[in-house]
Amino acid sequence: MSFPHPLPELQPSPVTLSDLAGVRASGVAAGIKVSGAPDVALLVADAPVACAGIFTQNKFAAAPVLVSREHLHQSGGMIRAVVVSSGNANACTGDAGLRDAREMAARVARGVGCAEHEVLVCSTGVIGHPLPMQKVRAGIDGALAALSSEPRAGRDFLRAIMTTDAFAKESGERARALIAGVCKGAGMIQPDMATMLAFVATDARATPSELAAAMPALARRSFNAVHVDTHPSTNDTFLLLATGRAQATVAEIAPDLERVCRRLAWLIARDGEGATKVTTISVTGARTDEAARVVAAGIAASALVRTALFGNDPNWGRFVSQVGNSPAVMSVEGLRCTLQGVVVFEHGSPTAFDRAATSLAMRAEDVSLDIALAEGSGSAALMTSDLGYRYVEVNAEYTT
Amino acid sequence: MSFPHPLPELQPSPVTLSDLAGVRASGVAAGIKVSGAPDVALLVADAPVACAGIFTQNKFAAAPVLVSREHLHQSGGMIRAVVVSSGNANACTGDAGLRDAREMAARVARGVGCAEHEVLVCSTGVIGHPLPMQKVRAGIDGALAALSSEPRAGRDFLRAIMTTDAFAKESGERARALIAGVCKGAGMIQPDMATMLAFVATDARATPSELAAAMPALARRSFNAVHVDTHPSTNDTFLLLATGRAQATVAEIAPDLERVCRRLAWLIARDGEGATKVTTISVTGARTDEAARVVAAGIAASALVRTALFGNDPNWGRFVSQVGNSPAVMSVEGLRCTLQGVVVFEHGSPTAFDRAATSLAMRAEDVSLDIALAEGSGSAALMTSDLGYRYVEVNAEYTT
Repeated sequence: MSFPHPLPELQPSPVTLSDLAGVRASGVAAGIKVSGAPDVALLVADAPVACAGIFTQNKFAAAPVLVSREHLHQSGGMIRAVVVSSGNANACTGDAGLRDAREMAARVARGVGCAEHEVLVCSTGVIGHPLPMQKVRAGIDGALAALSSEPRAGRDFLRAIMTTDAFAKESGERARALIAGVCKGAGMIQPDMATMLAFVATDARATPSELAAAMPALARRSFNAVHVDTHPSTNDTFLLLATGRAQATVAEIAPDLERVCRRLAWLIARDGEGATKVTTISVTGARTDEAARVVAAGIAASALVRTALFGNDPNWGRFVSQVGNSPAVMSVEGLRCTLQGVVVFEHGSPTAFDRAATSLAMRAEDVSLDIALAEGSGSAALMTSDLGYRYVEVNAEYTT
Repeated sequence: MSFPHPLPELQPSPVTLSDLAGVRASGVAAGIKVSGAPDVALLVADAPVACAGIFTQNKFAAAPVLVSREHLHQSGGMIRAVVVSSGNANACTGDAGLRDAREMAARVARGVGCAEHEVLVCSTGVIGHPLPMQKVRAGIDGALAALSSEPRAGRDFLRAIMTTDAFAKESGERARALIAGVCKGAGMIQPDMATMLAFVATDARATPSELAAAMPALARRSFNAVHVDTHPSTNDTFLLLATGRAQATVAEIAPDLERVCRRLAWLIARDGEGATKVTTISVTGARTDEAARVVAAGIAASALVRTALFGNDPNWGRFVSQVGNSPAVMSVEGLRCTLQGVVVFEHGSPTAFDRAATSLAMRAEDVSLDIALAEGSGSAALMTSDLGYRYVEVNAEYTT
């Protein structure tokens, strides 16, 4: 059995990671993936750059996460390199896994000529298997040799971090500063093979602590606004780097950074296996922003809602009864539910909306589901992908 | 497209509701369902019987739920009749819906010769549509006329409460007391058409307040142990009735009652659309019972876990990383994960278990997934159904 996975039309980003002055990148095939696809990616800055990270909250945090957290701390957030292996997550691999992650950093440090703690490590892929270190070592050496500041080098990096991704995910801007972002991961299939890795770099100026302070809000409105945020994988990592070569500060380009990160997050949601669209669930009028987020998460996580979205079914009953179930809602008096701009429920009952026209309107890349409560001024918006046949196929039939 | 829905082999219950002395039942077709299937069910006791109920916590509680709660309170839990309509839930129907639910009770009360508040009302089916009262009135009159104490009358009642159920759900015992239970509902597709209605009656003795006191624990280990308990529909109702004609007390037959209710709940989980099995997720060694329940619910609700179960995939990574994500878990040190009796993960790593043999063992009606933590003595067990192609088909392709 095989189900289609209609993909979005994508525009290449006008900026890649290697477009940033003083930054080189590479991506090579080391044989970690049986497919022979690129699987070792390397990013190197000529001089230390400010960096902050947000890592998985999973209590099974993988070895590379533990090492990267430690190195960020030891380096005071001024780093030289990021090395990524894909195809094997080096998770649930015990002490040997920790040694392997440290060895990856050490090997890059030797090649770059920096301290080990100036190198961060990420891995993604199957969990519970030891890293094939012979291949990883050769891959790191190859990636060091291939480092380049040409635009294609940033794309080589991107290709080498992908696993089950159906398409490459990049976004960038050339405005007051350069911003280049790449990520990998597929919405809704976490936590298995679907580690989210995101790397966003800018030439704007910031200290490591300024970056760290900016990241939680940025993540909340982008990567953590994809419904999967409650199911972090063992390896999830979001790194933000600032080379400081531009005039603008990171604070000044905050809206641009958020736009780039939101686009990357949208691409992750769009790549839920078999997804045909991204639905943005906006909740307004909740008691608090956090309450709004809980309500939106309840809707976004519902298999009933997500199958209705797949079927282009304006099934107001599934949406509003999820609101009625939310512990974050005190009263459903005044609830209004709007789907693709069409009010489908208000004053305690469904409206006489045109089902066929609304269903047609749901056949879009971007669908909006707006839940208006009347309890306060809290709001939140989450992105979710729909759930179709291919989701089941990918997750049930291919043992990972 | 059409996917198979393999059904379990079922044994008919040795006891039906109408086997209880002094209890008559009926089920008739009133045309509420377009299929012409039976859709009005009636249960009448010759004299008031003790009754307690657990109702949906959804803030969109349907009109019949509001009326039944009120009548239980007004009658002090001594009731004469329960009337059920199926095919239309009378939910999100405003004041007119409340009037309709009251009229149903009043019509039964006139026919039986009792007070309105001695009649409870349940409805299940599509939401947001007014009850077709002309059909409902004729159906109630027909059901009153058809009341019978023959065993088949209990089965008529059961057939008339079903909606999307793929099979009839009944369980009962003849031991120290008679216990007869029926329910309708299909695991995992709540809250839409999948209202759970359960009616369990015994001839054991209990006061209404004794029944009410016994119900929470009973529900927690049965109907609320099906994963869907966090998604109550607008109409969910569980009624427990005791005629008091036997010697035994309800307290004395508590284990038997629990067995009957657990069997009914298992049947609901087994009837998740496209489900091929029921997986019981047991968590032990949690800090508290509630913590254990939260951990189990996180696993049971995971689409990743449920597709792996459908695919007979002993995917330990999906199971243990869900444990690692649970807010109810402090430490994953000492975590052991056992699937169908096979230890697949311990001491922080997967074991060298036989994947093929374990996958084969997962092809069963009953699958066990045991999560042992080392944080305390809390435990809980939940039942979940697997998620396959037919789930998507039913929920995406047929607008309800």
